[in-house]
Amino acid sequence: MDYFAQPVAKLIEEFAKLPGIGKKTAQRLAFHVLNMNTSDANSLARSIVEAKKNIKYCSNCYNLTDIDPCRICANKKRDESIICVIEDPKDIVAMERTRDYNGLYHVLHGSISPMEGIGPEEIKIKELLHRLQGDTVKEIILATNPNIEGEATAMYIGKLVKPMGVKTTRIAHGIPVGGDLEYADEVTLSKALEGRREF
Amino acid sequence: MDYFAQPVAKLIEEFAKLPGIGKKTAQRLAFHVLNMNTSDANSLARSIVEAKKNIKYCSNCYNLTDIDPCRICANKKRDESIICVIEDPKDIVAMERTRDYNGLYHVLHGSISPMEGIGPEEIKIKELLHRLQGDTVKEIILATNPNIEGEATAMYIGKLVKPMGVKTTRIAHGIPVGGDLEYADEVTLSKALEGRREF
Repeated sequence: MDYFAQPVAKLIEEFAKLPGIGKKTAQRLAFHVLNMNTSDANSLARSIVEAKKNIKYCSNCYNLTDIDPCRICANKKRDESIICVIEDPKDIVAMERTRDYNGLYHVLHGSISPMEGIGPEEIKIKELLHRLQGDTVKEIILATNPNIEGEATAMYIGKLVKPMGVKTTRIAHGIPVGGDLEYADEVTLSKALEGRREF
Repeated sequence: MDYFAQPVAKLIEEFAKLPGIGKKTAQRLAFHVLNMNTSDANSLARSIVEAKKNIKYCSNCYNLTDIDPCRICANKKRDESIICVIEDPKDIVAMERTRDYNGLYHVLHGSISPMEGIGPEEIKIKELLHRLQGDTVKEIILATNPNIEGEATAMYIGKLVKPMGVKTTRIAHGIPVGGDLEYADEVTLSKALEGRREF
């Protein structure tokens, strides 16, 4: 790195800390920034600071938001009797894109993973149970990821919620639309079989 | 984009302007920034502003630098009788890594490309000729890229410099070290043959 002037080296180092950005890409980004006009570069820098400063967790669903409660929780048109439980704020974007869901969300901010030392207390399960007090919520949809941690988390939450008399569902596993049976792994295929429905 | 709170959407938009960063990656980077602690995020933002503010062109060789003349031009141990002409400041890094070169540089900031409307006046050729005044410089090495624009630029500069009595050389083309003859394209191979040396 000693071939670069110090501010350039520093910028490369900062970019290289971002996920999926290696040394080469960091270098390319840094040189791009140096070629940008000053106002564009400042605007990039400012948007980082502003986002970090103004984005908080929604005190209800723990989505990332600039207002509290977040726009989804505050929207009176949404069905507050149903909560979709997801691992990550990004999953809300995926769900919203379907345009098929009109309920609320609950972001766990992770999944139970003994391997990484993440227990049920480290993610927002307590906060979810708190939201189930009262009679408003009739159903929770467990939409954690279909991997070991996500399944374990869904199972764990399911066991806690069932006795509370709230309907608990899990999103379906199966062959992705447009996918090919030939290339589906056997676990997905057996889940797809298991979840078959009458035509 | 309307699924995101405004500061997040803005940050994603800013990241997506960077080269090689698509919408998905921009989203991933933005969420990473939101998960960073505030001082790290501010440090990233600051390094962008600082680099942009403090980095200028060296008034001698047009390398990017925070001091003028740049560290290479100011280094008395370097051989100022030889100038390596390159297209881009990044190429200096590549050259320095060889540890085989101890002369100075001249950064053209581009190559002649009629297709993109870049003529000889748009790149730092005039400034190079200015440096060849006097008796200090004995040789210039044309290390522009081995593509059409780079070759044209080298040829153009070569024609201007020859009458000034300065030795003009071009870096060699050939099979890359560790490369495979079988996979070398015919132009590279014929250049390698043309440039063969006695063993």
